[in-house]
Amino acid sequence: MRIAFDAMGGDFAPEAMVDGTLRAAREWPDTQFVLLGVEDEVKPHLAGELPTNVQLMAVTQHIETDEEPVKAIRRKKDSSIVRGCRMVKEGEADVFISAGNTGALMAAGLLVTGRLPGIERPALAPIFPTLTQKGMLVLDVGANPEARPEHLEQYALMGSLYAEAVLGFERPRVGLLNIGAEGGKGTTFTKEVYQRISALPLNFIGNVEARNVLNGDCDVLVCDGFSGNILLKNTEGVAKAIFDRLKKEFTRNAITKLAAAILKPGLKRFATEMDYKEHGGAPLLGLQGPVVKAHGSSDARAVFNAVRQARLYVEQQVITRISDELNRLEGDEHR
Amino acid sequence: MRIAFDAMGGDFAPEAMVDGTLRAAREWPDTQFVLLGVEDEVKPHLAGELPTNVQLMAVTQHIETDEEPVKAIRRKKDSSIVRGCRMVKEGEADVFISAGNTGALMAAGLLVTGRLPGIERPALAPIFPTLTQKGMLVLDVGANPEARPEHLEQYALMGSLYAEAVLGFERPRVGLLNIGAEGGKGTTFTKEVYQRISALPLNFIGNVEARNVLNGDCDVLVCDGFSGNILLKNTEGVAKAIFDRLKKEFTRNAITKLAAAILKPGLKRFATEMDYKEHGGAPLLGLQGPVVKAHGSSDARAVFNAVRQARLYVEQQVITRISDELNRLEGDEHR
Repeated sequence: MRIAFDAMGGDFAPEAMVDGTLRAAREWPDTQFVLLGVEDEVKPHLAGELPTNVQLMAVTQHIETDEEPVKAIRRKKDSSIVRGCRMVKEGEADVFISAGNTGALMAAGLLVTGRLPGIERPALAPIFPTLTQKGMLVLDVGANPEARPEHLEQYALMGSLYAEAVLGFERPRVGLLNIGAEGGKGTTFTKEVYQRISALPLNFIGNVEARNVLNGDCDVLVCDGFSGNILLKNTEGVAKAIFDRLKKEFTRNAITKLAAAILKPGLKRFATEMDYKEHGGAPLLGLQGPVVKAHGSSDARAVFNAVRQARLYVEQQVITRISDELNRLEGDEHR
Repeated sequence: MRIAFDAMGGDFAPEAMVDGTLRAAREWPDTQFVLLGVEDEVKPHLAGELPTNVQLMAVTQHIETDEEPVKAIRRKKDSSIVRGCRMVKEGEADVFISAGNTGALMAAGLLVTGRLPGIERPALAPIFPTLTQKGMLVLDVGANPEARPEHLEQYALMGSLYAEAVLGFERPRVGLLNIGAEGGKGTTFTKEVYQRISALPLNFIGNVEARNVLNGDCDVLVCDGFSGNILLKNTEGVAKAIFDRLKKEFTRNAITKLAAAILKPGLKRFATEMDYKEHGGAPLLGLQGPVVKAHGSSDARAVFNAVRQARLYVEQQVITRISDELNRLEGDEHR
């Protein structure tokens, strides 16, 4: 297996990307790792000799976090993001992982790697932390903000297959993000999606309200990219605000600092559970080849987790399964 | 001033409703309070003689939390919710407050109290807690899940006027909930809303991302009812999940319990800040008369806060101001 890596993307790049890759290279000596990066920037972090299964591939351009995605991938054809997506397209890599500009990665995935035949819109599918510690795959969180009902039908299918093959859920419970729990609730849009998903051969459990996401009420949550993005960012924002505010209370004086020190192991355990980075990256489901978005604030550990997940994504041949399932359903319809 | 009260709605009704009303009646002896409730259920909580400014008005029906809103208000015309909305419509009360079935209250507001001329869709506008402790008015959170851009334009106008008159914000900063910070981000829908609000005589600060809501990045946040509902329920759900989980860590053993006891005042202070109930109720903006939704889990204190806010809503003549502003803008357009 050959994994291409964006050495340039993410808040702690290139250092965290390099460290994570080297760690993964030691863990999986049978896997080839290709680091795509600007030589002058990456080299200083490659102390000593490279493991035989790691290779640096020089690129000359870098897409910044705040660049306009489509313009960036058109102008910077020799950036790590465009090169990585092309490697997957051309079979030079089995999977590409990047913690860089999310919009640019989605655009390159769509325009360079390309859609899987039969899929109308790819979806970005991160794993949300849940109190059950099993996590929940949520799709789409913004690859396609103006979704149509048939897109969400395909998300349900792709998400279920991925959750089963890569995340280890048995008959994943698929839920629809909605503003009421009972069937028949919501908008014209969600009502149509509900009907469509009901007709699929999935373990569809119906509507799930936003208040129950962290409880892990389902394993795969389907939503349009606009709502999904609101959900993702709000969850991150509320958790961050609460932890920041708690810190203020805990460091108020010497006594509270002492008390907080006693509670620290428990708080840390909880913070780890709530950490996106523990769960690996977010696949861009619906492309012809595996492209995975790692969290922007990925450290070496997050990179390592993303590799573990990406390996399963490839090994389990999820994309072939999605393609087969689409053909099978298509066949059923025409019978 | 005459305030009508739904004694039957909310998790702690009728007791909390009665207690809150009696407390408010003592605080504001110049205000008349009308408790709408089923006599047999409310009477036991009215110990001793009623203050001269509190009156029990008997109704014979009650709309439960899980009833289908429109059916319920059609079938139960002698329920507290329908009677209260009618009192406002007919000038028998200056404002109606209910902690009952939200959907039924919205339906009764729309169908019984009626829309303000010129307003296409009323909006439910709760106050979100913020780390700045000033709160943020968010509208709409579900009165109108299938909003059109012109509806959000009216929300911006109504929300700004309400936030200035009732919540004390000077030139309230109006933001648009969106999935990117820069102008031009988002969907066709949000782009059109952005243009429309930009053209209004408001302090519009542009897009606000869901991750920044608790930071209080704006004073009035405008969104469609579907996204707003997701935002509201997710915020509640994430906060609840985190506090529940912290409780588990804090009560793990005798030592952590002791440490938690030391931190308790700070945690309590924070929990109070984050408590919706501290901020009063959510007006249904865009109706001909003031109707206020109090939180379903309202206790006597929340009821009291809702009264304080409702009094300002009436005194500041917010509805007249909204109506005048609509006419003025209409006039400008036709000039």
